[in-house]
Amino acid sequence: MKIVLKLTGKLFDEQYVGVIKEIIAVIKHRYSKGDRLAVVVGGGKTARKYISMGESLGLSNSLLDVLGIESSRINAMFLASALGDAGYLPIPRNIEEFLNAWSSGKVVVLGGIQPGQSTNAVAAVVAELVGADMLVNATVVDGVYDKDPSRYSNAKLLKEISIEDLEKFVRQEYLPGHYELLDPIALNVIKRSRINLVFTNAFKPTNILRVIEGDRNIGTWIKF
Amino acid sequence: MKIVLKLTGKLFDEQYVGVIKEIIAVIKHRYSKGDRLAVVVGGGKTARKYISMGESLGLSNSLLDVLGIESSRINAMFLASALGDAGYLPIPRNIEEFLNAWSSGKVVVLGGIQPGQSTNAVAAVVAELVGADMLVNATVVDGVYDKDPSRYSNAKLLKEISIEDLEKFVRQEYLPGHYELLDPIALNVIKRSRINLVFTNAFKPTNILRVIEGDRNIGTWIKF
Amino acid sequence: MKIVLKLTGKLFDEQYVGVIKEIIAVIKHRYSKGDRLAVVVGGGKTARKYISMGESLGLSNSLLDVLGIESSRINAMFLASALGDAGYLPIPRNIEEFLNAWSSGKVVVLGGIQPGQSTNAVAAVVAELVGADMLVNATVVDGVYDKDPSRYSNAKLLKEISIEDLEKFVRQEYLPGHYELLDPIALNVIKRSRINLVFTNAFKPTNILRVIEGDRNIGTWIKF
Amino acid sequence: MKIVLKLTGKLFDEQYVGVIKEIIAVIKHRYSKGDRLAVVVGGGKTARKYISMGESLGLSNSLLDVLGIESSRINAMFLASALGDAGYLPIPRNIEEFLNAWSSGKVVVLGGIQPGQSTNAVAAVVAELVGADMLVNATVVDGVYDKDPSRYSNAKLLKEISIEDLEKFVRQEYLPGHYELLDPIALNVIKRSRINLVFTNAFKPTNILRVIEGDRNIGTWIKF
Amino acid sequence: MKIVLKLTGKLFDEQYVGVIKEIIAVIKHRYSKGDRLAVVVGGGKTARKYISMGESLGLSNSLLDVLGIESSRINAMFLASALGDAGYLPIPRNIEEFLNAWSSGKVVVLGGIQPGQSTNAVAAVVAELVGADMLVNATVVDGVYDKDPSRYSNAKLLKEISIEDLEKFVRQEYLPGHYELLDPIALNVIKRSRINLVFTNAFKPTNILRVIEGDRNIGTWIKF
Amino acid sequence: MKIVLKLTGKLFDEQYVGVIKEIIAVIKHRYSKGDRLAVVVGGGKTARKYISMGESLGLSNSLLDVLGIESSRINAMFLASALGDAGYLPIPRNIEEFLNAWSSGKVVVLGGIQPGQSTNAVAAVVAELVGADMLVNATVVDGVYDKDPSRYSNAKLLKEISIEDLEKFVRQEYLPGHYELLDPIALNVIKRSRINLVFTNAFKPTNILRVIEGDRNIGTWIKF
Repeated sequence: MKIVLKLTGKLFDEQYVGVIKEIIAVIKHRYSKGDRLAVVVGGGKTARKYISMGESLGLSNSLLDVLGIESSRINAMFLASALGDAGYLPIPRNIEEFLNAWSSGKVVVLGGIQPGQSTNAVAAVVAELVGADMLVNATVVDGVYDKDPSRYSNAKLLKEISIEDLEKFVRQEYLPGHYELLDPIALNVIKRSRINLVFTNAFKPTNILRVIEGDRNIGTWIKF
Repeated sequence: MKIVLKLTGKLFDEQYVGVIKEIIAVIKHRYSKGDRLAVVVGGGKTARKYISMGESLGLSNSLLDVLGIESSRINAMFLASALGDAGYLPIPRNIEEFLNAWSSGKVVVLGGIQPGQSTNAVAAVVAELVGADMLVNATVVDGVYDKDPSRYSNAKLLKEISIEDLEKFVRQEYLPGHYELLDPIALNVIKRSRINLVFTNAFKPTNILRVIEGDRNIGTWIKF
Repeated sequence: MKIVLKLTGKLFDEQYVGVIKEIIAVIKHRYSKGDRLAVVVGGGKTARKYISMGESLGLSNSLLDVLGIESSRINAMFLASALGDAGYLPIPRNIEEFLNAWSSGKVVVLGGIQPGQSTNAVAAVVAELVGADMLVNATVVDGVYDKDPSRYSNAKLLKEISIEDLEKFVRQEYLPGHYELLDPIALNVIKRSRINLVFTNAFKPTNILRVIEGDRNIGTWIKF
Repeated sequence: MKIVLKLTGKLFDEQYVGVIKEIIAVIKHRYSKGDRLAVVVGGGKTARKYISMGESLGLSNSLLDVLGIESSRINAMFLASALGDAGYLPIPRNIEEFLNAWSSGKVVVLGGIQPGQSTNAVAAVVAELVGADMLVNATVVDGVYDKDPSRYSNAKLLKEISIEDLEKFVRQEYLPGHYELLDPIALNVIKRSRINLVFTNAFKPTNILRVIEGDRNIGTWIKF
Repeated sequence: MKIVLKLTGKLFDEQYVGVIKEIIAVIKHRYSKGDRLAVVVGGGKTARKYISMGESLGLSNSLLDVLGIESSRINAMFLASALGDAGYLPIPRNIEEFLNAWSSGKVVVLGGIQPGQSTNAVAAVVAELVGADMLVNATVVDGVYDKDPSRYSNAKLLKEISIEDLEKFVRQEYLPGHYELLDPIALNVIKRSRINLVFTNAFKPTNILRVIEGDRNIGTWIKF
Repeated sequence: MKIVLKLTGKLFDEQYVGVIKEIIAVIKHRYSKGDRLAVVVGGGKTARKYISMGESLGLSNSLLDVLGIESSRINAMFLASALGDAGYLPIPRNIEEFLNAWSSGKVVVLGGIQPGQSTNAVAAVVAELVGADMLVNATVVDGVYDKDPSRYSNAKLLKEISIEDLEKFVRQEYLPGHYELLDPIALNVIKRSRINLVFTNAFKPTNILRVIEGDRNIGTWIKF
């Protein structure tokens, strides 16, 4: 099975090293069973630090994005290093380098690629490119809710959501505020290739594993 | 002045070599006057040929995009070669190579960069990255119309359009069908950095020059 | 067995997608049986289009060659994409990148490499470099004839030809006009390393397979 | 004049953005007067974060170094971006890329290059390679002291120190503990090429400028 | 088992082709048994020729180092070519390229990487990076002696030496003059990661094999 | 003026350092007067050493060529280093890297590029690519003779030779044996673009300068 795993950059903080360890165990487990995996990681706190510093100096939005991209690449380097022989190094910096890395048969970890788009877009493009059976988007909450879970205590986790409804959420910027949005490229790529997308919680590594194993009681599954 | 010029790929056809010659003259003229220019070109007919062949073989959308990107790079190579000493070679294949090329001081021509986005997105990102004074988007018609000029003979060319209205056009897929759309990345980048965008006709090189010279009677100018 | 397959660029046209499909089946068949394959493709119609456009603009011969090389690379990209997991991406752009790609164990497809030489030269160099057991040169006709088959209806296909006679053909530019010549590098490399070269018809995929299987009744085999 | 400026990574923190701004002004000032500058920056707090996380996961020392190197590269990217048209992008990742960047005539900023050595070594090698007139090593204190200034309140700043005495400090690991050491490569390169090295305080940008202007009352100057 | 083999550049001379042949047999033997090997080679006579020529022209030390590095890369190219299908090509020129090459599963041969350090440092860094079980440093003598074997006929080969004593030798430049020293980076890396280092004689290929096989009667083994 | 200078690899030997120094003075002189120069150098003695060693190990012809190419690149590195600020580093390894280097405005030195062709071919392709006003081929003799000057004491230096006669010499392998031949690519490129080629003696730097200055009494000038 070919799996693309998108991990929120928020994971890459000293307090979450234990979680990362468990995620690594999940990745290695599936790799050892013959799965092909690509992992795309966000920039997290490091990105926010440099972007905020860049704003103080008046850098252009593209250069702020570049700082975010570089930050996500350190996170990728960290994760790939920790995968040992299962992980590919160095970190691919564009699609051509990704393809070369992918041909090695190892787990390929990467961060951002280009200003103007999020690491969600990278994950979607990579999933399409390798013909992934599944794109697991692991964020800070358990999946997609009917309202913003950070504001409404009665927000309900959706087990499924149609791509059209997901798109409406994204378009209306209505998607509950504290988790990362699909950007328009990501959405477009997922729609056009009907990529099997599931949202789950990055901070619950067991859930990531269960989603990969096909447990539809975990996370939010996108329907086409 | 820093100028990013986006040229429709439809130009790169044998019947339009004369037009290309005139566009080259415009580019060289501005370059010789001290302007810094980046030119982004689409894939045109060559792209359509390979994408159609790829569809016959059932290639994934990302790989179809890759074929389109390679096609746009030949168009870029063609244009850059024809610029002689003013043009930078080889053609940059990603943002890092673009930055290296840009530091040469020459006119940098490039095509697409990544699956999932159009060459319009590349043009917007490049414009933001170099801090362009102007992004000239040269398409197959004179600018943005109030209705689709290919269907309504009384369609009126707009001299100006607010970014909000442009966005509505794009969102509603209402933009007159036969010319190339701004994709969502392009739109987002242009909005966030308030890039000075003008639509004009690639097949009227004099108009391109006049737009660069600031003639607001030519093309459609975007207001923020 | 290590095989280098040279395919005429004329294949890469919309009307021949069916033929390409069959060639892909041949390549995948041999790959799945453990053969190592490199495939070198010409620029075909796309090359001719850009070269003719370049001539109109007065480009130097080297730059015209560069346009041809880029065109052959799109053809290579098209074929490699269509090979799915068997094909290596991205397309190598020089000998060092070829060696890296070759180490992946996948089928490596490439086009031209350098101005001043044909893709036949690339195929010969690659065959020598990997120590190929066979170089199959698939052109638009069934092999080498005693006279130009496009002019003489009684031209006879040669089952074998000595390298010396082949060289004479090439030197006298006597080789039947409508199929692609071995250029002097190709010839020199083939001679010095006594590469097992066979000419066959690219438009008859079954013949390619039979040549690879050693059927000396198909094509023209070079003797040393 | 050719100047290599080594900046402690500790600068690259949100609280010191004001200092960085002043350093940028110094760099731009000298650049505008015709100096050629290379700037080498350390990894600072970001490096320490990732190295500490890596240690928790049991990464090898080389991989910890790699994390430090990537961190220093974000700092370099940040500084180079903030230099605007004076700064070269992208950040060189090895000596060959540095040489290419240097040929652009712009200010080249870089971080680490290789596990097993510090960014001080990079600065020394770069200074030797470009034939720098001066290597300014800007740390967290005013220069070299006769004892550790963080422990002895009566530690005295040395205006000059012979390379032999500096070497003794380094060898005995006696160099005042809280500022960054010259590693053995740096020392060796500086000795063999008698590089004009001055230690000064990165947090006092005016001092950096005065050192560049030759004011021997600022910092510690190395004698050969 | 993961093995890093450091070979003195002095091997790469016409008179020693026979020895190289035997070393190749040792490498292929271990490779065929499933070992992963990286081989680092010095610059030898070619390096000395170009360095001496460079000195005549007054080149800087860094550029002299670069000439030495290029020379070691030819030696690496020579060895890797002679390994046939077991050897990776092209030769990695920096750590990132090494990591990519290493992921191929082949024997990776490399020379120097950066001015200011020896190929011994490269070997140590590579050994640390891949987590080598053993670093075999094959020089011109049988191992480490208690005095300089070229000057004292009664110099005694040490079967073991503690890393502290080895360091003292290196620091005092006391290590018998005619064989290659560990430079400070190499020493530092070996110490910090307690790399299993053995010195043996490059000109006795059987000894290299026996060291790899764990025969502690051959060469000098470093104790921690 | 744009000049491509081809230098025989035989120059790069310790005994000829003085000659190289003079050639450097010639190059710098023309560079300082505003000429653009590319210099292509052969592999010389170093190439012969490694090729002979490779033959002992039974390497394929392509790999022998690769060893020759690497050797020519050290010679190129040596020369480029010695040019100081006038010379571009690193050495380009293919045509794309050459184009990037050329855009720096510096003197670009390179060696071989690809198996199967000589450095004469590289020089011709480079001359065509940059639109050189002159290709100066500096060999071990004064130019082209009517017979082999090493065998016939009465061999006469030709002041001019038609390209057709030169071609005959090359084709008949009649060109006086001890100087380097134009290979068929070189010849073909020179013919098709009517490149202004002059043969002169590399060991007489003053002659190189006089040829560049247009003195038709020096060397052999090719007529079209």
